[in-house]
Amino acid sequence: MMSIARPRLSGKTMHEEPIMDVAHLGHIELFTPKPEESLRFFVDVLGMTESGREGESVYLRGWDDYERYSLKLTGSATSGLGHAAFRARSPQALQRRVGALQGSGFEVGWHEGELGHGPAYQFHDPDGHLIELYYETEWYEAPAALRPALKNQPQRFPARGVNVRRLDHFNCLAVDVQANREFFERYLGFRLTERIVLNDGTEVGMWLTSTNKSYDFAYTREAHGVKGRFHHVTFALDSREDILRAADIFLENGVFIETGPHKHAIQQTFFLYVYEPGGNRVEVANAGARLVLAPDWRPITWTEEERKKGQAWGLKTIESFHTHGTPPPPDGHGRGRKG
Amino acid sequence: MMSIARPRLSGKTMHEEPIMDVAHLGHIELFTPKPEESLRFFVDVLGMTESGREGESVYLRGWDDYERYSLKLTGSATSGLGHAAFRARSPQALQRRVGALQGSGFEVGWHEGELGHGPAYQFHDPDGHLIELYYETEWYEAPAALRPALKNQPQRFPARGVNVRRLDHFNCLAVDVQANREFFERYLGFRLTERIVLNDGTEVGMWLTSTNKSYDFAYTREAHGVKGRFHHVTFALDSREDILRAADIFLENGVFIETGPHKHAIQQTFFLYVYEPGGNRVEVANAGARLVLAPDWRPITWTEEERKKGQAWGLKTIESFHTHGTPPPPDGHGRGRKG
Amino acid sequence: MMSIARPRLSGKTMHEEPIMDVAHLGHIELFTPKPEESLRFFVDVLGMTESGREGESVYLRGWDDYERYSLKLTGSATSGLGHAAFRARSPQALQRRVGALQGSGFEVGWHEGELGHGPAYQFHDPDGHLIELYYETEWYEAPAALRPALKNQPQRFPARGVNVRRLDHFNCLAVDVQANREFFERYLGFRLTERIVLNDGTEVGMWLTSTNKSYDFAYTREAHGVKGRFHHVTFALDSREDILRAADIFLENGVFIETGPHKHAIQQTFFLYVYEPGGNRVEVANAGARLVLAPDWRPITWTEEERKKGQAWGLKTIESFHTHGTPPPPDGHGRGRKG
Amino acid sequence: MMSIARPRLSGKTMHEEPIMDVAHLGHIELFTPKPEESLRFFVDVLGMTESGREGESVYLRGWDDYERYSLKLTGSATSGLGHAAFRARSPQALQRRVGALQGSGFEVGWHEGELGHGPAYQFHDPDGHLIELYYETEWYEAPAALRPALKNQPQRFPARGVNVRRLDHFNCLAVDVQANREFFERYLGFRLTERIVLNDGTEVGMWLTSTNKSYDFAYTREAHGVKGRFHHVTFALDSREDILRAADIFLENGVFIETGPHKHAIQQTFFLYVYEPGGNRVEVANAGARLVLAPDWRPITWTEEERKKGQAWGLKTIESFHTHGTPPPPDGHGRGRKG
Repeated sequence: MMSIARPRLSGKTMHEEPIMDVAHLGHIELFTPKPEESLRFFVDVLGMTESGREGESVYLRGWDDYERYSLKLTGSATSGLGHAAFRARSPQALQRRVGALQGSGFEVGWHEGELGHGPAYQFHDPDGHLIELYYETEWYEAPAALRPALKNQPQRFPARGVNVRRLDHFNCLAVDVQANREFFERYLGFRLTERIVLNDGTEVGMWLTSTNKSYDFAYTREAHGVKGRFHHVTFALDSREDILRAADIFLENGVFIETGPHKHAIQQTFFLYVYEPGGNRVEVANAGARLVLAPDWRPITWTEEERKKGQAWGLKTIESFHTHGTPPPPDGHGRGRKG
Repeated sequence: MMSIARPRLSGKTMHEEPIMDVAHLGHIELFTPKPEESLRFFVDVLGMTESGREGESVYLRGWDDYERYSLKLTGSATSGLGHAAFRARSPQALQRRVGALQGSGFEVGWHEGELGHGPAYQFHDPDGHLIELYYETEWYEAPAALRPALKNQPQRFPARGVNVRRLDHFNCLAVDVQANREFFERYLGFRLTERIVLNDGTEVGMWLTSTNKSYDFAYTREAHGVKGRFHHVTFALDSREDILRAADIFLENGVFIETGPHKHAIQQTFFLYVYEPGGNRVEVANAGARLVLAPDWRPITWTEEERKKGQAWGLKTIESFHTHGTPPPPDGHGRGRKG
Repeated sequence: MMSIARPRLSGKTMHEEPIMDVAHLGHIELFTPKPEESLRFFVDVLGMTESGREGESVYLRGWDDYERYSLKLTGSATSGLGHAAFRARSPQALQRRVGALQGSGFEVGWHEGELGHGPAYQFHDPDGHLIELYYETEWYEAPAALRPALKNQPQRFPARGVNVRRLDHFNCLAVDVQANREFFERYLGFRLTERIVLNDGTEVGMWLTSTNKSYDFAYTREAHGVKGRFHHVTFALDSREDILRAADIFLENGVFIETGPHKHAIQQTFFLYVYEPGGNRVEVANAGARLVLAPDWRPITWTEEERKKGQAWGLKTIESFHTHGTPPPPDGHGRGRKG
Repeated sequence: MMSIARPRLSGKTMHEEPIMDVAHLGHIELFTPKPEESLRFFVDVLGMTESGREGESVYLRGWDDYERYSLKLTGSATSGLGHAAFRARSPQALQRRVGALQGSGFEVGWHEGELGHGPAYQFHDPDGHLIELYYETEWYEAPAALRPALKNQPQRFPARGVNVRRLDHFNCLAVDVQANREFFERYLGFRLTERIVLNDGTEVGMWLTSTNKSYDFAYTREAHGVKGRFHHVTFALDSREDILRAADIFLENGVFIETGPHKHAIQQTFFLYVYEPGGNRVEVANAGARLVLAPDWRPITWTEEERKKGQAWGLKTIESFHTHGTPPPPDGHGRGRKG
């Protein structure tokens, strides 16, 4: 019933080879107007570990993050994304990407590096979010009290709160989702795995990866026409039961649960969204069971009708999921004004 | 407490770039002297789906394998590994690897391709196992009755038996483990994540990957001095609870459970080993939660003393785990004779 | 900080002893206008086992039900509850309850018994549902193909579909919830564990038990003023992950998911509601973790405001949950007309 | 294929009615020679909450225990069981049991009650363990910081360590297991659910219940001929995954894991045994999924041959499981001397 095409390995079918220069998402910086409460949330409720402080920033990590930190939490006048950082696969890979970005109009330039990693090349995506790429990094060395029993693990399991394992992905808002996808594909070599395209052809969501995870970040459409806004950051847990237990713990701690636990149709992520005290949306999700191993993965496109069906098991998508982002839009950029 | 070294991006510290040419493990072929019983095991108990037949072989798949099959089950006079197949990342990647292997003394040559994939380049590892590399492949197209509800999934969840998700890894035995590791590192670009080295310096176990999974295959020491033998094949499930349920189902079906469920210290795999009717060892393991994202992962070396501690939670390693392999060793190759 | 009252064991504080005559819920009979499709749902999707046929009825069981069956599925002109049956703790207990019911105005009388159990005394609750009480029962004897590996289990684990373990509870609608609660407390000795009372004092939900389960059945308010209607029957699974997997399986099988998986605030049940092909609502829930061990449990009363908060993690209660029951109300009994 | 006997409800088949006077296991008192370390284990690792102190004793509770405490931890010269306490179903039930015990030769007499409960009647089992029965109890009132989000729960979920839910059962050693079983059946009304009988007719293990849990305590054979020794106390968790996570946490905390996680054939308990710092064996087990609802449950008898098969999935029973008890036997009561 299944026929197999056997294309020749001729020059004609030789596509350009994939760019493999970005190894993985390294960390994100979150701004919070309530730094103390936000810190308590990430440490006591999410179960993260503080691994550094500098100025207004506290550096935090999940117990299985191999680098020194995966979250930089910075006290600020408002909420939102400070920057997102990807680690290059090699020094050469970093230089290749810098070479591609230089003169593109998106570049910001070299940053001398900060706590935990070496020189980083910074640039903006078309929506204005600040992104950086680095190679040199500091592997986490657990202090004695946090040393794990098994030496193939960077830090002991904290057994505190939600016990998030590692940074999984982030989600930005963008006025022009397609432009941002094309930017990351062209300049960084990310691969598209899924997207949403409305009936009028507008791309309103896209999920990109540089790993075997089915996405390392996503962009979805900005509802207020304001650039540079942030949707959520996601930390990984091992199983769906871990997400349910997280819901129990959020409930006990008075954390606002926006929606979930439930299963997204898109990417099949088992999700749970809450707001941290600074206003930023935080997700915990089970990670890893679904892998994209195909080097030539065929992107899935979801239609407007399919999206209207809600989530995988029928939960209607909550309205705030389409509108809440950080920082809050300035006055005059209310819901009525779409980008 | 943590100092950060910031090496210059000078030519001196520029290491050779990693080879990224192998995308992932594609399938393995298992020989079985009891083809009917083995088939019933893989379909009824493991929950795999038949997706082709040819000659003495039946082709089988887990519900989340994207290619047509991940297991070729071949009726034979004895048990053991037929061959293992990896998919290259691109046509160019395939040709580069072929170029490296040609003239190496390990090459077998091109195979015109078989059901489900295009031309494959075959070679032997130093222990004599047959391995192949291919690029062109047939994506699985589920017949109507097996079409999934969510279009980002290749096949519907079977809800039958153990419901294995996908092929995860295989484990071969080798008389000289180190020689096999070096072969796969040099010619195929696999990266070492963990290994066992005895006090006398002998390497008796090694785990290699070409993905973000912490291993795609492993080799452990052959106890009888016989080359080309097979230790086990592993299929992935989503959670540890899935493995426990699998144990319940194996018990109900009279399947021989060798050891587990328990957690390996090495790789932290939550494991369960059984023998399929043909005598081959089959593992089900939870997959995906643990990922190796670091492009420059620092291999973990386990010592003889550490290995003697048994598994992660204290289970003693069962003796047969060191001796049982397929096919059975010929007479005169008993336990007393080490390779 | 906690003071302890030590009441004397005097005659004054001697309350009447609890009635312990009902051992547990035994089975329910469901009517279905689509007997073949309903049967396929219960066998293929829920994973129940057929254990008898008689007339228009098929008898079904979960793998851990100790009696011959827990569900009698009867082809009928419409949907709804045929009857619910409780097992008495002893022959004497049965006679005591019969003695209490005789002359109460609720009695129907003795039924000679049917497949699987001995003489049953039938009666109506104040809302008109048919209930029966029996003692003699047939313990399930699994045929050879279904014999379990462990002899403390009545039947082998089917490894098919949702694999429901056993009947857990049922939920009826009632025009007067309080009258029904008082009936079951007075005549049968059930104990109230939780209830909902509106601000005007109307009791609109109540959960009763005769076991250490926190409820064996519930009654909630009828929205259309029609007596004798049914809300749902619930089968137990072992863990919350089992419920999530059930959701995956319902999705793959095109079963209508009404709401869930989510956690009820009331009773903390982790729930998932679907409609079987005959129109009856069926729930799968994790059972057993929460036990009521206190012989003098203090009933929890939920207020109108608390109920408006939705479910435990914030899911809004779906409107159909308050209106859909079986059989459908006759014309003229629409939503506008409350009982 | 299944015939149904319909015995008449005549006087001849009227068996004596079951005694329903014991409601449930209330608490146990453990002796520890290392009170500080034991306390840290129960609070920090197991996740229990301190709810009182008096003299050498600290009172502890799981988050779902409804009474003030379920564990009394008492500093002492050695380890072992202080006493076990059951709650009667009613004041009358307590008096009936006292009436039965008085003059039996086993009675100790009334104890005025201690922190958390009212007057208790104390007695010894035939092996000399101290047991008590009480009715009046103090319901736990959580202080503000520990108040739960859901009012049908006694205390908030701690999200610390293993998070044990409630006391589940205990296991004593006895030189004469059968004598102890008959004592608890006759004087307290416990019902036998499972037992082990050797080929020579010796009963070496028995599991008794007064609830719908399949056992509230067990007695197994003493290997050193010393009376009054203790085997283990068990705390309940919700799921098997919770037990696996507990194993991870014990490993990280350097707690000695004796055996498990694995599934017992007997009672099908998913078990994990560790030693607390005082030397007492502590089990965490998933609880509740398996219920005994039949009021006339037919006890399962396991033979010597069946027991030799090891645990459900084939794990061999560890030798120390048959010999380690607390307190340690005095000199001269080594393994060679069986009781």
